[in-house]
Amino acid sequence: MWKVKATEKRAAREACIPKEWKFESPYSEKDDVSVVDLVPTHLSEKELEITNITDPERLALKIATKQYTSKEVALAFSHRAAVAHQYTNCVTEFMFDYAISRAEYLDDYLEKNGKTVGPLHGLPISLKDSFNVPGYDSTIGYISYIGNKDTRVQSNLVTLLLDLGANFHAKTNIPQTLMTADSENNVFGRTLNPNKLSMGAGGSSGGEGALVRLQGSAIGVGTDIAGSIRIPALVNGTYGLKPSINRLPYGNQTGNSESPMYLSFKPVLGPLSNTMKGIEFFFKNVVLANPSTYDDFALPIPFNTKDAQPAEKPLKVGLISTDSYIPVHPPVTEFLEDAAAKLGKAGCQIVNLNGKVATFWEGWTVACGFYSAFVPNDKTCYDSVRKSGEPLIKSIVIDENSEYRPKTLQDYSNTIKATTQLYTKWMEIFRDIDVLICPGNWGTSAPHDKYSGCPYTSMWSVIDFPTIVIPYGKVTKDYPGKHEVPEGLQRWMPAFDSETYQGMIGSVQVVVPKLCEEKLLSCATAIDQILHPENY
Amino acid sequence: MWKVKATEKRAAREACIPKEWKFESPYSEKDDVSVVDLVPTHLSEKELEITNITDPERLALKIATKQYTSKEVALAFSHRAAVAHQYTNCVTEFMFDYAISRAEYLDDYLEKNGKTVGPLHGLPISLKDSFNVPGYDSTIGYISYIGNKDTRVQSNLVTLLLDLGANFHAKTNIPQTLMTADSENNVFGRTLNPNKLSMGAGGSSGGEGALVRLQGSAIGVGTDIAGSIRIPALVNGTYGLKPSINRLPYGNQTGNSESPMYLSFKPVLGPLSNTMKGIEFFFKNVVLANPSTYDDFALPIPFNTKDAQPAEKPLKVGLISTDSYIPVHPPVTEFLEDAAAKLGKAGCQIVNLNGKVATFWEGWTVACGFYSAFVPNDKTCYDSVRKSGEPLIKSIVIDENSEYRPKTLQDYSNTIKATTQLYTKWMEIFRDIDVLICPGNWGTSAPHDKYSGCPYTSMWSVIDFPTIVIPYGKVTKDYPGKHEVPEGLQRWMPAFDSETYQGMIGSVQVVVPKLCEEKLLSCATAIDQILHPENY
Repeated sequence: MWKVKATEKRAAREACIPKEWKFESPYSEKDDVSVVDLVPTHLSEKELEITNITDPERLALKIATKQYTSKEVALAFSHRAAVAHQYTNCVTEFMFDYAISRAEYLDDYLEKNGKTVGPLHGLPISLKDSFNVPGYDSTIGYISYIGNKDTRVQSNLVTLLLDLGANFHAKTNIPQTLMTADSENNVFGRTLNPNKLSMGAGGSSGGEGALVRLQGSAIGVGTDIAGSIRIPALVNGTYGLKPSINRLPYGNQTGNSESPMYLSFKPVLGPLSNTMKGIEFFFKNVVLANPSTYDDFALPIPFNTKDAQPAEKPLKVGLISTDSYIPVHPPVTEFLEDAAAKLGKAGCQIVNLNGKVATFWEGWTVACGFYSAFVPNDKTCYDSVRKSGEPLIKSIVIDENSEYRPKTLQDYSNTIKATTQLYTKWMEIFRDIDVLICPGNWGTSAPHDKYSGCPYTSMWSVIDFPTIVIPYGKVTKDYPGKHEVPEGLQRWMPAFDSETYQGMIGSVQVVVPKLCEEKLLSCATAIDQILHPENY
Repeated sequence: MWKVKATEKRAAREACIPKEWKFESPYSEKDDVSVVDLVPTHLSEKELEITNITDPERLALKIATKQYTSKEVALAFSHRAAVAHQYTNCVTEFMFDYAISRAEYLDDYLEKNGKTVGPLHGLPISLKDSFNVPGYDSTIGYISYIGNKDTRVQSNLVTLLLDLGANFHAKTNIPQTLMTADSENNVFGRTLNPNKLSMGAGGSSGGEGALVRLQGSAIGVGTDIAGSIRIPALVNGTYGLKPSINRLPYGNQTGNSESPMYLSFKPVLGPLSNTMKGIEFFFKNVVLANPSTYDDFALPIPFNTKDAQPAEKPLKVGLISTDSYIPVHPPVTEFLEDAAAKLGKAGCQIVNLNGKVATFWEGWTVACGFYSAFVPNDKTCYDSVRKSGEPLIKSIVIDENSEYRPKTLQDYSNTIKATTQLYTKWMEIFRDIDVLICPGNWGTSAPHDKYSGCPYTSMWSVIDFPTIVIPYGKVTKDYPGKHEVPEGLQRWMPAFDSETYQGMIGSVQVVVPKLCEEKLLSCATAIDQILHPENY
């Protein structure tokens, strides 16, 4: 029965793709193939010109000055998204009708008023499936949620972005339960990594990661409570920002669970982009629009113009390039040390913190406690699975009976205590540096169903420090020697081998203390300018 | 045994008062006597001139321009504090030696450098006993804590205030356990209300309330998790600010309990002053000093200059003048409605919310859950009492075996859920008003050991909305009819009678949403200008 529903839902999705944009991809999730250079071959010159603009501010300027109409831009990104989807299965809901109708309104508005609706006028933005837009399902990959479009209240962020002039053309794929880094579910199937289809696109905002990497969206919006923005960003090779809790207006998304235990440990939303500029542009404009007037829980903190300025003194950059307990793959260490060397050469002061900080494992066990915290009366993600009879997907690592689940008030109290201790420990380290660079994962990416544990991203979720992932490095050589995963950790990460990870993109995770987003943007931009001078 | 320790500690305290400042008060806690006009009779003309300046900014200016030396000011406030103490028993630690030595340093600094250390240069500030200053005990009223001065790390706020040039001359009395509004403990005894010694001085920052009311301090600093700043402010008749959690640097105080259950429900610190100006001066200068550089948990939110400006449009003021379930005493309603009428006359738009909001009782039951939340391994305030064999004081209403105590993870989850629901309900109300005025208590004040429940202040602690208490009104007439406390509520409040409350000061509690402190200051100042034009 659930299979029939899934088949119908998928068919309805495919029916939204205009015939002239349809094709049959010759590749599957088994193929070691990159589709990054194949996508552009499907597009017209004009479509390429438009969608190759990776700085959304520049694109918005071209619309505002009538070099492109909103409709041209909506169509170009819709086409590119349709192509990206047919290679990687990244989209859950095509919103092409919405995008064209909205674009016509925006063009008309600009014509009549001689000015734009706002700074995002005409930009086609893609949304993780959990965001609600009236008229479109938010199944978040549960069979039992299919057809829920009429019961959803518009997400607060969507309302805010519309007020800024934005457009929407697609919602994107996620994992069943949202609690794994493999974006697979029984409704829509699995999203593939554009750089190599046999690798995962990450999760839970995996559809965003693939779509943004393939430039099928001017900006992508994901959510993150363990790494769900940063993991798709780093495995696909885009930029991604996880801000602090409640800095941006999270409310009115379709929820995964009704456990209220996340009192001060909540998911956040944030952008994915192919440029640092795109990340900054999204964050700044959303904050300038006063999120607290759209969302009960969004904090009324104005944009900190002072902290957003480039630092006057050379940056003091903390470096962690591996971990004593859960060692990263060789290329991860190499890329981070290489990045640190470049930063040092450019005048930054590098503080090597390897061996001087506690292992990321500490944060992971605390995080697993929060992720599995629920009480018998809660509606959990497992209930949403059970309701339709569909099976659990393979990649779920923290299940209903997790040994990390706090079962008593004492357990939960210990989790809170451990969180506070972690926070204090890291604050002490940050007293002596401006910014930290560290791994975002044990590897550059992961084969399907192998991502598993995410201690390098969840640490910053647990203590609520904002972080940005910057793509840096590419696995292009063989690493000698055999990499082994320490005893007892095989459950959480696979071993490295040069062949599997060949061609995958590396990354640097940039971290600052809680609620210092503006400082993070300023530091990450300074770092990006040194690592990617070609983009400036 | 504990009695000997207490007697010695009190004797040591009294020995700090210079002989020439000593006198025997003819009054006790049984007397219906105001000492407000008696205190000045003990002081020299110069001491009166100095201590009668209730705007700390003006006083700081006089020091900065050498009209007074820091030493003169320190001595004048020390003398006035000693007098206030001998009438009301408000001080735990006299810091006169510290204050004089610090004043000499400050005078010397100003002389040598031609400028002040900072905007609080020379201002004698009093601190609730929980703040740590090296060399002085922080017993917080526990026999078992006597003599702990060498084990205490300086409070983060103290360090910050010293950097601003402040001085300290006294620490002040609190209740045993800090969990009642009667500032009585077995070490120091009970603090009396200056307006009528037979009434309580409030708590837990009761010593601050009495001392500030008697102008024995340029600014007082208290802490609040249920009303502990606002209750002493309102019963004694001063202004008091409870900011949002972590807006000001709370860290390194002597703790009452080591329960970690307060993950997002924590005490805060804030000022008490005889003027609105004093409240604003303290808050603004502390925030401008970047609390997050002094305190791991203080939020890095800059002072919001825009919100601190007077509103351009007439204020839309919500009015709650009583409660459907826990009705306030007749004068409380009278003063609030009188205030609203004045505000309306002055151009504010008044939105009468009586009967349109849920009862404050809702918040009280949730609050009691948090206040009594602990697990077997926690060190609780009751353990600190037991350790010395001293008895519990009489006024404790939420005890170790409180029926409100969450005992299972399910209980705690319900408490969190209820908090979120309360927050959302109030946010909906605040979407339609700029600011709310409501009772701060069921009465203007309370006889000793009768304060009991504090739903009107704890509501805003639970949902973390900042509030300011403004003194307004005085019980000067008889109210006809018999006031009765509804069935089942006698445990939480006494009935009103005109005689008992005669002469007591009324108040208005001003409330805005979470983290909108600057807006609160701006609104409360506008309201104060209308209610107390004589001060402007």
